Amino acid sequence: MINETMYALGSKRSTIREIFEYAKTRAAEIGKENVFDFSIGNPSVPAPAAVNETIEKLLEEIPSVSLHGYTSAQGGKDVRDTIANNFTRRFGVALSGDDLYMTCGAAASLTITLKALTNEGDEFITFAPFFPEYRVFVENAGAKFVVLRSDEKTMLPDFDALERAITPKTKGVLVNTPNNPSGVVYGEKTMQKLADLLAKKSKEYGAPIYLISDEPYRELVYDKETKVPCPMAYYNETVICYSYSKSLSLAGERVGYIAVNPKATEAKALYAAVCGAGRALGYVCAPALFQRVAAACDGMTADISVYKKNRDLLYNGLTKCGFTCIYPDGAFYLFMKAAERDAAAFCERAKKYELLLVNGADFGAEGWVRVAYCVETELIERALPLFEKLAKDYGL
Amino acid sequence: MINETMYALGSKRSTIREIFEYAKTRAAEIGKENVFDFSIGNPSVPAPAAVNETIEKLLEEIPSVSLHGYTSAQGGKDVRDTIANNFTRRFGVALSGDDLYMTCGAAASLTITLKALTNEGDEFITFAPFFPEYRVFVENAGAKFVVLRSDEKTMLPDFDALERAITPKTKGVLVNTPNNPSGVVYGEKTMQKLADLLAKKSKEYGAPIYLISDEPYRELVYDKETKVPCPMAYYNETVICYSYSKSLSLAGERVGYIAVNPKATEAKALYAAVCGAGRALGYVCAPALFQRVAAACDGMTADISVYKKNRDLLYNGLTKCGFTCIYPDGAFYLFMKAAERDAAAFCERAKKYELLLVNGADFGAEGWVRVAYCVETELIERALPLFEKLAKDYGL
Repeated sequence: MINETMYALGSKRSTIREIFEYAKTRAAEIGKENVFDFSIGNPSVPAPAAVNETIEKLLEEIPSVSLHGYTSAQGGKDVRDTIANNFTRRFGVALSGDDLYMTCGAAASLTITLKALTNEGDEFITFAPFFPEYRVFVENAGAKFVVLRSDEKTMLPDFDALERAITPKTKGVLVNTPNNPSGVVYGEKTMQKLADLLAKKSKEYGAPIYLISDEPYRELVYDKETKVPCPMAYYNETVICYSYSKSLSLAGERVGYIAVNPKATEAKALYAAVCGAGRALGYVCAPALFQRVAAACDGMTADISVYKKNRDLLYNGLTKCGFTCIYPDGAFYLFMKAAERDAAAFCERAKKYELLLVNGADFGAEGWVRVAYCVETELIERALPLFEKLAKDYGL
Repeated sequence: MINETMYALGSKRSTIREIFEYAKTRAAEIGKENVFDFSIGNPSVPAPAAVNETIEKLLEEIPSVSLHGYTSAQGGKDVRDTIANNFTRRFGVALSGDDLYMTCGAAASLTITLKALTNEGDEFITFAPFFPEYRVFVENAGAKFVVLRSDEKTMLPDFDALERAITPKTKGVLVNTPNNPSGVVYGEKTMQKLADLLAKKSKEYGAPIYLISDEPYRELVYDKETKVPCPMAYYNETVICYSYSKSLSLAGERVGYIAVNPKATEAKALYAAVCGAGRALGYVCAPALFQRVAAACDGMTADISVYKKNRDLLYNGLTKCGFTCIYPDGAFYLFMKAAERDAAAFCERAKKYELLLVNGADFGAEGWVRVAYCVETELIERALPLFEKLAKDYGL
């Protein structure tokens, strides 16, 4: 009688959530310090001090009725102008506050954008490995979700496969860089190649193919030479879905934005459709206080040196054990090849050492596992000898 | 190429928003003090002091990673338990934290609930006058929106009309009490009659007809004798959609909840479907900090004595002028009969005196206007002589 699809979505826990619950139970049995939970992508470092300082200042300076009252549906004008100016300065792409729509985080940015774009029969393409909720969001918008494999050595898009997969039904391509779960960043060459192919195909079919760029990890990169190119600088038909969840360690506060490239063919209409979709989905406005916090702290990051330290420690430790790992340029995940064909069995084996990993199959990549390193550094230090034992079990 | 329905929703401003923008322009021309804007339902009194005090305390006591991190999708366990306990104590209806799902405000409560319930071909019934976004939310969930007229003297449901309108396609009835825009509260007798009819019809068709009760104004009532009955005490198949926007003057912060009656036939499945719908619509969790604020301040209200004063002043003043008004038991709106058949023309005439009213047609009630009294009391005092002139124009 109720909606069966929604029931299924709500009653079936995600694997990540299963492991998270298992970790809690196991911690009660053997002590929290003996469980090595690498499953969850929850920021492990505090928000920058400026976040709480900004909140205190706002509470003091802004009258309650303005501070906690409705903002415009698309977000406060000052907030949008500030963020747009920063964007232009940081990425060299002209953006105004009127191209920005403030949201309740990345998931909202995506559901709203997909809803704004989708007509019956449309398809969105993404590359495995991908964040599992993409399937939920795309299908809920009424579109077909098309998954392509990446090059297994680099976890970068296979452009030949992409060229073959694009049809007149392709409404957009959804990318996530730095990537969850692989940590890989699309460099300038990759972005240019993607842009060229989408431009060619758009022209061929006489309709824009949108590039939807999900960028919650944009600021989380660790090497000087790693640049995260702004897709709008390469391709006009771009919508950026951003969130402050990871950069400012504000995952629970739900604040982010959608940026519609003003150079997109239908920029104005698309922005209006974004406003309409936000309205239809019940997003009245993004949380008012945290809109102001986001504007004040835009471009800052939490202390990501911790993630860098963790990344280096984990990547070096695991490769030394003999595991095959994708070098993670950014985000806070490491993608590792399972030491046997069946990654689920490998995860079970790891569990014997209290190492909790996530099966890559959930991300569309069979034979791999995700190791989230947004944890205490000390946990990684103590886990490495256990990973070594695991490697030895497989004769690595 | 983009979604035309979303484009239409985003590009056509609501009448309320039109008036709001007109008010700003007009204020620039003749001075803010000379524009009498009764169009917007934005709380005009500050949040209770406990709100900001709670925020300060939380910032001090809870580490950033816990305070600003993800909560469970359904909301923090402590938060839900606290609110459920208060609910049971206040309304005498047993509710546990596991029956509550924290949301980003009333609009989210409604879109999630409707999505969880709706299958193809379903219909939801509401009574005019109704909050205009209901149509958007119901249609976006894929259901048909059926509007019935109320009794014009009381603005209470016409039960004969309801009995005729319920068919096997009726998935639910959506009520809003205290009502926006009429201010009317459904008393015990009305609630009992509604419950009896829905129970009878559910039995007749062999499937529950849900009562969806939208209650953002629940605490905003002004007379000792006005009680707002809890629908769960009358009818098992009830879902309450609540928001702290109006009670705590937190409209911009987006926090509320869905309460699924544990006595509903499919309570557990419906709760799971609510979780699934929240996920599909992109609601990862309700804003974390304000979830805790809501729990700490649940049951409190902003200083609503201001609204009572405004209500009395406005109701007495307008009836004295000769206008026909519905006595508003609650919320912060007064529903007034237009003094000519065409309410749009009446609103235009009022505009000549700088009185900005909203046409009741937007709420499904032709020939009426809404006057929002969440304004400075002094504004009403200065407006009454202008209303008097308006009345005289019509020979009242």
